[in-house]
Amino acid sequence: MQTVGREARAASRTLAAASTDAKNSALVAMAQAIRDSRDALLAANAADLAEARAAGLDEALIDRLTLSAKGVEGMAAGLEQVAALPDPVGEITDVKRRPSGIQVGKMRVPLGVVGIIYEARPNVTADAAALCLKSGNAAILRGGKEALRSNQAIASCVRTGLAAAGLPQTAVQVLETTDRAAVGALITMPEFVDVIVPRGGKGLIERISSEARVPVIKHLDGNCHVYVDDHADPAKVLPIVENAKTQRYGTCNTTESLLVARAVAPRFLSDIGRMLAARNVEMRACPEALALLREAGIEGARLSPATEQDWHEEYLAPIIAIRVVAGLDEAIAHINTYSSGHTEAILTEHYTHAMRFLREVDSASVMVNASTRFADGFEYGLGAEIGISTDKIHARGPVGLEGLTSQKWIVFGNGEIRR
Amino acid sequence: MQTVGREARAASRTLAAASTDAKNSALVAMAQAIRDSRDALLAANAADLAEARAAGLDEALIDRLTLSAKGVEGMAAGLEQVAALPDPVGEITDVKRRPSGIQVGKMRVPLGVVGIIYEARPNVTADAAALCLKSGNAAILRGGKEALRSNQAIASCVRTGLAAAGLPQTAVQVLETTDRAAVGALITMPEFVDVIVPRGGKGLIERISSEARVPVIKHLDGNCHVYVDDHADPAKVLPIVENAKTQRYGTCNTTESLLVARAVAPRFLSDIGRMLAARNVEMRACPEALALLREAGIEGARLSPATEQDWHEEYLAPIIAIRVVAGLDEAIAHINTYSSGHTEAILTEHYTHAMRFLREVDSASVMVNASTRFADGFEYGLGAEIGISTDKIHARGPVGLEGLTSQKWIVFGNGEIRR
Repeated sequence: MQTVGREARAASRTLAAASTDAKNSALVAMAQAIRDSRDALLAANAADLAEARAAGLDEALIDRLTLSAKGVEGMAAGLEQVAALPDPVGEITDVKRRPSGIQVGKMRVPLGVVGIIYEARPNVTADAAALCLKSGNAAILRGGKEALRSNQAIASCVRTGLAAAGLPQTAVQVLETTDRAAVGALITMPEFVDVIVPRGGKGLIERISSEARVPVIKHLDGNCHVYVDDHADPAKVLPIVENAKTQRYGTCNTTESLLVARAVAPRFLSDIGRMLAARNVEMRACPEALALLREAGIEGARLSPATEQDWHEEYLAPIIAIRVVAGLDEAIAHINTYSSGHTEAILTEHYTHAMRFLREVDSASVMVNASTRFADGFEYGLGAEIGISTDKIHARGPVGLEGLTSQKWIVFGNGEIRR
Repeated sequence: MQTVGREARAASRTLAAASTDAKNSALVAMAQAIRDSRDALLAANAADLAEARAAGLDEALIDRLTLSAKGVEGMAAGLEQVAALPDPVGEITDVKRRPSGIQVGKMRVPLGVVGIIYEARPNVTADAAALCLKSGNAAILRGGKEALRSNQAIASCVRTGLAAAGLPQTAVQVLETTDRAAVGALITMPEFVDVIVPRGGKGLIERISSEARVPVIKHLDGNCHVYVDDHADPAKVLPIVENAKTQRYGTCNTTESLLVARAVAPRFLSDIGRMLAARNVEMRACPEALALLREAGIEGARLSPATEQDWHEEYLAPIIAIRVVAGLDEAIAHINTYSSGHTEAILTEHYTHAMRFLREVDSASVMVNASTRFADGFEYGLGAEIGISTDKIHARGPVGLEGLTSQKWIVFGNGEIRR
């Protein structure tokens, strides 16, 4: 791993100075290599799948591991999309002249070497390589052992693209070892690795965060909230609650807890309850909400009392926690106590309630009158997404190319010395 | 420490929502309390000093520990200066309408709870409290045990100021324990502490970085370089090298290594050598520079061959390493190999050399034709400085109020749902 790290560090110097043209040419050449290698990629993936099935791995994992012809084309198209994004590196901003005479500003620069640790999905290999390259970073990628053959086949296309553009092939290194110790080494060499981005389940992320000696851009839970304020517009409530909870159950920006202001709970909870029941969403409600939902005829397995644990839960399933709160203050307090800091929305027509919610809720994304499902790099216009950060330091919320960069200070002088 | 952490977290909610007026009133009231308590502060400090002397602590530490009447006034004035700075919290930027109809932007927000760990200087207590408060963060301060009485006396003034403005007194907690285990607890409670800023010697910072389970904004060495390019303006070379090396020897932005392009080494090194010799700066030179300096009549204890270790060294003393390089490429390679990533300057009139140096040198501050001594929060116009970061993630170079904040995403919707 020391050798891998040293080569990545050396490649990162070249990449930091690489022209936008060279990086884009490499991305386009990678896309071409992937299309040209479709059969080889599918064969490698079939071998991985056969082994995974023989080992009795579960269907969800098999599903994530599977690469189809469409998936191969998707990877190639994704590389071309990243080529089309603006290059963040080298951008100079905020230049100001100081009383001393110097002009001080900032220049956007790559982080250096990015380590990405992921699980079964082989498309992450192409995706992560593209984002790191475009942002001028060398990448060390370590995928799941189930996807080893698929990842190595993709890595070969990535190297073909780098070589075609005259960039060092060590700019993207896909580890061939599936040894767990390699991960341990990767996350503890700050001299060679500037940041780690784990992509995968909570277990992976927690383990890496607790063992890393390198900064980690991490995404833990998405326990997202919608708060229906006492000044909510009735026309917006049902569509947004429905979309936020039921459009997709397994995504991190799906709403898991619904808070309703006491003054409007009788008005809205019956409609919300019936809508959720019709979609087979299980409701876990506080005593007050429970009573209102029962009055509306919701009963049986679909409705049960919420426990303290429910307010903490990221269900990733057709289940929602529902609580009646006194109003805005209690809603903010509830969210700041139980939320994982991912995404929260207020539904209100009250200006000051909206502005206070935006200011006082301590989450990565805070919304007024919109579905939490919008918390996404593409919806936010980042053009790409390496992940969604629930950290506060460096990058918060959806992380695009800019999140893989930093800014250094630049000084344009004319012979000034300090007095 | 759990209780301290929980109270800090609770106070951080209030501070995040506090008005600029309330924060400024608290700062002004703290300044007044410090002026009013001058005699008590000096008495507490005298008791600390007596104990430190009795324990035989060294003079450098005694010097850092000493608070004079002028120092007390300096603390009060510092608090007022922070009150006069713009409030970074709540600033909304980059709002863009997306095709879905939502408007997405960013809002600057406090980090939450900042832990500051420092050594003997008691004025850091007031200084750090002010910066954290102004940036809307709750603070947990842990000073050196030598300064315990001084710090507690200052803490009392800080609490007086907070109370006067109606802010929670737990917004700034100065630990009363000098137990080392308290530091261990402080840096390993991510649930209560969002970032740690160690201020002190390299030993302290390395220990904290290696043990922390919370992000650390750290400042390690300042091994700064000046590179005299083959297109340097002769009128700028001597004044900048003199200022960068000799204005102050003990500061982190002082130049420690001088690189000179081979083509101009004979022209500049004799003048530089004589200037440094006149100021009793010891030169440690590569063989080529050694020969040129000897020709210029520099000899004896002031001149010796550089070892590999010299290129790594932060001397903080009247010593400089000098190396002749082939030109720009070798200068950049040398710096990116040996520098601590703090501050580097190129002296050149060559446009492309200047731009390449700015782009390719991987340090927090990169300068053209200016003294490295300018790398400073006040010189950069930040108005205040909590430290200088040699990290790449989150904050790089001088860290002011903005470095104690983050940005969250905000969405202004009008009932939009995701399709």
